[in-house]
Amino acid sequence: MGVDASGIRKVFDLAAKMKDPINLSIGLPDFDVPEPAKQAAIEAIQSGHNRYTQTQGIAPLRERLRADMSREIGRDVGEVLITSGVSGGLFLAILATIDPGDEAIFLDPYFVMYKHLLTMAGGKPIAVDSYPDLRFHPERVEKAITSRTKLLILNSPANPTGIVMSEAEVKSAVELARRHDLLIVSDEIYEPFLYDETPVGEGGGRLPSPARFYEKTLILRGFSKSHAMTGWRLGYAAGPEAIVSQMTKLQQYTFVCPPAPLQYAALKALDVSMSDAVAAYRRKRDLVFDRLSKEFDVVLPEGAFYIFPKSPDGSTASDFVARAIENNVLIIPGNVFSERDTHFRISYATTDEKLARGCEILCSLV
Amino acid sequence: MGVDASGIRKVFDLAAKMKDPINLSIGLPDFDVPEPAKQAAIEAIQSGHNRYTQTQGIAPLRERLRADMSREIGRDVGEVLITSGVSGGLFLAILATIDPGDEAIFLDPYFVMYKHLLTMAGGKPIAVDSYPDLRFHPERVEKAITSRTKLLILNSPANPTGIVMSEAEVKSAVELARRHDLLIVSDEIYEPFLYDETPVGEGGGRLPSPARFYEKTLILRGFSKSHAMTGWRLGYAAGPEAIVSQMTKLQQYTFVCPPAPLQYAALKALDVSMSDAVAAYRRKRDLVFDRLSKEFDVVLPEGAFYIFPKSPDGSTASDFVARAIENNVLIIPGNVFSERDTHFRISYATTDEKLARGCEILCSLV
Repeated sequence: MGVDASGIRKVFDLAAKMKDPINLSIGLPDFDVPEPAKQAAIEAIQSGHNRYTQTQGIAPLRERLRADMSREIGRDVGEVLITSGVSGGLFLAILATIDPGDEAIFLDPYFVMYKHLLTMAGGKPIAVDSYPDLRFHPERVEKAITSRTKLLILNSPANPTGIVMSEAEVKSAVELARRHDLLIVSDEIYEPFLYDETPVGEGGGRLPSPARFYEKTLILRGFSKSHAMTGWRLGYAAGPEAIVSQMTKLQQYTFVCPPAPLQYAALKALDVSMSDAVAAYRRKRDLVFDRLSKEFDVVLPEGAFYIFPKSPDGSTASDFVARAIENNVLIIPGNVFSERDTHFRISYATTDEKLARGCEILCSLV
Repeated sequence: MGVDASGIRKVFDLAAKMKDPINLSIGLPDFDVPEPAKQAAIEAIQSGHNRYTQTQGIAPLRERLRADMSREIGRDVGEVLITSGVSGGLFLAILATIDPGDEAIFLDPYFVMYKHLLTMAGGKPIAVDSYPDLRFHPERVEKAITSRTKLLILNSPANPTGIVMSEAEVKSAVELARRHDLLIVSDEIYEPFLYDETPVGEGGGRLPSPARFYEKTLILRGFSKSHAMTGWRLGYAAGPEAIVSQMTKLQQYTFVCPPAPLQYAALKALDVSMSDAVAAYRRKRDLVFDRLSKEFDVVLPEGAFYIFPKSPDGSTASDFVARAIENNVLIIPGNVFSERDTHFRISYATTDEKLARGCEILCSLV
């Protein structure tokens, strides 16, 4: 099956030749796994939790997540499947729902994996333009719906834009999905990184997840970004029973089970408050937006740890990124995430010093 | 995509209702991860190796495996890809090589995953009967080859039969593959568990891997069975550059990377001799074969930790297994691994006491 190497990889290859670059390209937290979670992993290894777990993951972790999410969403979310990262969950969700020729809609700019996974499954990725405000426009999405549309993939907070869908936007998406009987796949991997929203719902969860309003929602979340466990490959899925049980069957023949001892660590991680990390990222978000908005056309990101400014007038993103790299700043051109080559992605998950210096250099290039 | 739950799961569900069964169904070692490997995992976690690794796995592990395998096989095996278990390697290999309608041949009885993964990829699984001696019959395999055949999947030592292909059998398979330009996918997950073969090749490797004789061989091996790391999800692949690089691209969008800290443990595990474990399993193999061959029609298994006897005259395997379960012995009916329902699988990866008692009960049921 034909899948191209990611454009991010090309940028990383360039980066490998840079000496001590100001690296604003990395899509992962700049802190390490919290100590109590490390200890729980170590205890699990020492006490022999090294064999296959159940296909769907260990019961205490599934039960805890089901209880937490049900409280947040306001209804029983059903059985939870522990996946090998949110990527693993996405892959299984697409395999479980997409037959050759089926279509799935998501916003452009998009997380690169959506296109590739849909293509691998024989499906048709349909990217709906969200420029220039990078927000959800229901009338554009509705135009893209056909009789073959199966999925509406939402990603809020979004990579690469940092945009968080408002409750009104989510409700308009749900309304479309309901009318056309679509499954919403809600990629909420950045759910803990929210900077401006006020709490919604009884459970105190702050993200207006479409699952609050629509039962045909598959929630995908993970530990990679929230607890800096990107290398531990742990995520989870909850949604309609028929989909989750089909994903479980498929997991049995592919991923088999998520890494056993690390599942015990994820359970422990749920008791670790990450609010300091989120507060630090909010500050970084403010820092980078304040500086860049003086020189660039840029939308305020409300979550995740990305910002997606427009390249200066007259230059493509690729050209601008090449100039940034010549000046020792590593960023990702928007065409990696988009049909357009007009914007670039900055990850602000780095030190304040590097951020400030990076912004200064980028502004000097305008 | 339609994939049925495995028959093994149904047996496990039955087993869940048994009180302290003599469980001869478990396809994993009855020892724990070796201590030095546990320590290496713990150190990796403590020292912060918790982020994504390169898609293809950490360089020191890949380099070590490439050197070891190249010495064993007698030529440079090329780049090694670290996979999420051998299952992960199999899945990527099939995705990388099978287009809808393509065929892949393997022996019946077979490891259940082959059929399901091929079906998921839109391919056609072609199982070639190997009864009654459970060995590779080139003339039967050749009859099954068509213009759509892409893969010949070999599994030696085999699950569920324990059969190890002789050098002559491997050469006959290679001869067929060469003539019809097939890729051999050599599932060697049980490679360390060999009981009768004399060393072959310069490197002292004992398995007559088809890779010794045929460059268009994809070797799949892992740590799950050899080092009791079934829950750590670590395997590896080596073979033709075009295939391995396509598998790497696919890994980028699916598994992303194998579990990061556990890769460091796998590197350490390569320095741990497992010869005591293999000697113990050889003894168990002798014990179970000696006892069962008195009452059952059974082929001597030369590797892995399975034996695959024929059900007594007049009973299907399913019937015999039901009787065994009534008598507190848990075994797997052959129809889980085969188009036939005539044999049953015993895993002898358990204590000598349970084995002896289990054999006694099974013999009493004849």
